[in-house]
Amino acid sequence: MIPQGFTFGAAAAGLKPNGDLDVGIIVSDRPAVAAAVVTTNRFQAAPIIVSKRNLRDGSARAIVANAGNANACTGRQGLTDAAAMASETAKLFGIDDKAVLVASTGVIGRTMAMDKIRPGIGAAASVMSTDPAPFANAIMTTDTVPKTASSRAGEATVFGVAKGAGMIAPEMATMLCFIGTDAAVSRTLLSQALIRAAAKSFNLISVDGCMSTNDCIFVLANGASGVQFEDDSPAFEEALTTVCSSLARQIVEDGEGISKVVAVSVRGAKNKREAVQAARRIADSALLRCAIGGADPNWGRVLAALGTVSFSFDPHTVDVWLGGQKLAERGTVGPGDLDLAKKAMGEREVEIVVDLGRGSSEATMLTNDLTAEYVRINGDYTT
Amino acid sequence: MIPQGFTFGAAAAGLKPNGDLDVGIIVSDRPAVAAAVVTTNRFQAAPIIVSKRNLRDGSARAIVANAGNANACTGRQGLTDAAAMASETAKLFGIDDKAVLVASTGVIGRTMAMDKIRPGIGAAASVMSTDPAPFANAIMTTDTVPKTASSRAGEATVFGVAKGAGMIAPEMATMLCFIGTDAAVSRTLLSQALIRAAAKSFNLISVDGCMSTNDCIFVLANGASGVQFEDDSPAFEEALTTVCSSLARQIVEDGEGISKVVAVSVRGAKNKREAVQAARRIADSALLRCAIGGADPNWGRVLAALGTVSFSFDPHTVDVWLGGQKLAERGTVGPGDLDLAKKAMGEREVEIVVDLGRGSSEATMLTNDLTAEYVRINGDYTT
Repeated sequence: MIPQGFTFGAAAAGLKPNGDLDVGIIVSDRPAVAAAVVTTNRFQAAPIIVSKRNLRDGSARAIVANAGNANACTGRQGLTDAAAMASETAKLFGIDDKAVLVASTGVIGRTMAMDKIRPGIGAAASVMSTDPAPFANAIMTTDTVPKTASSRAGEATVFGVAKGAGMIAPEMATMLCFIGTDAAVSRTLLSQALIRAAAKSFNLISVDGCMSTNDCIFVLANGASGVQFEDDSPAFEEALTTVCSSLARQIVEDGEGISKVVAVSVRGAKNKREAVQAARRIADSALLRCAIGGADPNWGRVLAALGTVSFSFDPHTVDVWLGGQKLAERGTVGPGDLDLAKKAMGEREVEIVVDLGRGSSEATMLTNDLTAEYVRINGDYTT
Repeated sequence: MIPQGFTFGAAAAGLKPNGDLDVGIIVSDRPAVAAAVVTTNRFQAAPIIVSKRNLRDGSARAIVANAGNANACTGRQGLTDAAAMASETAKLFGIDDKAVLVASTGVIGRTMAMDKIRPGIGAAASVMSTDPAPFANAIMTTDTVPKTASSRAGEATVFGVAKGAGMIAPEMATMLCFIGTDAAVSRTLLSQALIRAAAKSFNLISVDGCMSTNDCIFVLANGASGVQFEDDSPAFEEALTTVCSSLARQIVEDGEGISKVVAVSVRGAKNKREAVQAARRIADSALLRCAIGGADPNWGRVLAALGTVSFSFDPHTVDVWLGGQKLAERGTVGPGDLDLAKKAMGEREVEIVVDLGRGSSEATMLTNDLTAEYVRINGDYTT
């Protein structure tokens, strides 16, 4: 379901060696309130810097994105190129340069082939339609499937499209994600709702613990549905969170080389911060993620990873369930059945539950297993 | 070279399924000043807890160690078993229980087979000699080679033996390491020198960023050489550091499934803390370590990993060399030759140098590439 007033376009500019779609545009037919969450990496890519500048007034009309080149660590030339992508797009749609947000993904440290990008933007602009599929394909890199999601907030629609399969780590907006909605919302509601939605979705996933230079979520709200949400109304944020959570899960499901999706739930924490940190340490353990790939119910690796958290806790109140079996109880071996746990870990979806036994807060991180295929994909990536 | 007054023994107690040596003893023929550095993991294994208790008086005579079972997350029974290993050893050598340190490595969460360990300790005690080789073999798990090192401090000798190939991460004593010396040193000198030596060696290596529950370094100084070192003399610490550095390097060289050893040097930092943190973030990047395996001079991944440090810095003063080629200069593409860098990365030893351009401190972390073989080893590990 596509929100009113938004159109999408894509073209093959020749940035991907295989000739696939690699430049995409999203345009709103009227001004839109806009907000973003971007990577906290200290090497922010040029398009991130340009987009932050263009977002200062809290509004935008269009997004231009490309795959194949991240335009990161490209110095002054990179900033010039990112700005040129915005102005090229702006010119074609008769809007202000500052109304265009820019995003790039691909190899780091290579100057943009602007002789390909410019005509690519022109070609994408000439095929705008309400079908988001070509755009969703254009932003893919090692992704194997395009990723879109939508949700309703009353009569308004929230629609999102994302890419991401590697260099996925939490504590920031991870990957590229573009969201459009025809809801009418204030700048305050949009930015606050986005921050909270990201915290509950993209910031609770990890594929490899590696933070990108180009991560961003852009959201445009053009009000075309005529449905107005007050700042204190939860309905819009709920729809936005639904879209973000769906896209975040799709990214984990499409993690590079994975064979399994793993939900790590930590409960019984003193507060949310503790719960998130504990879930993250467990989800980021390379050793545990290898064990999951091998369907090995290695609860000791869960505890070893948990033991690295920065807060102190009593090891003797900790219980661990793997595949529904309570394999650790009070910090030592539990009554669960190892064979049943192993069987459950053979499934595509694996559940790890940890109870810290010291409070009532909880958090769930989504991750996946670490496979030889992940290593192959990232050993062969081109530089 | 073995320090005076130390003997070693080992036996096959049946803890390793293949019947290899798995229990070992080191004994000093006289009381020794002793010190330890142990894991900071909040799930400390039973032998770590027992050894810390036995070390309270700053002296020890013997070390008993086993592979095949980590005796971690084993509750009260684990503590009883670790204490029994110490008392069994003490009895055989006619020394006090508290003079024995205990260390275990292997699977987490399984009760020790004391019916095998007890006769194993007896068998090891019956074959004590000045040859450390059987002991070095007995503590191996996924290690492919035994690891020993020695150094001279004047007429005194420092000798060490270590094991470790996976679950190797910095910021703690990583792995098992036992050091004996016939130098005569105070308890203060021994413990201070050990902390500093560990910081310069074991705490600057990472195989997989995973912290163990059983890591420990034990050092016994029995003074048998008659060579006395004053607390302010650097000679003893230098010899100790040499031994620790050699063993740390041997652990990285024997990292699970590796094909390359990688030295990540960060210089131009404001202080040592910054330099170490930056080197660690780079060394721990799964994506970069995959690229190194594939001999891909992916300097963008170096910067992306560097960008996650907790201190802020100017991205425009950062230079990166890969395989001797300056591939990034002032945060963007540098003049180095990619093909030459790729060629250099085909070698067994790969060098990554990062200059932050903001000070004069430096640090070097040792790590290795991430391979499909690492994934295989840790997917097949038994639980």
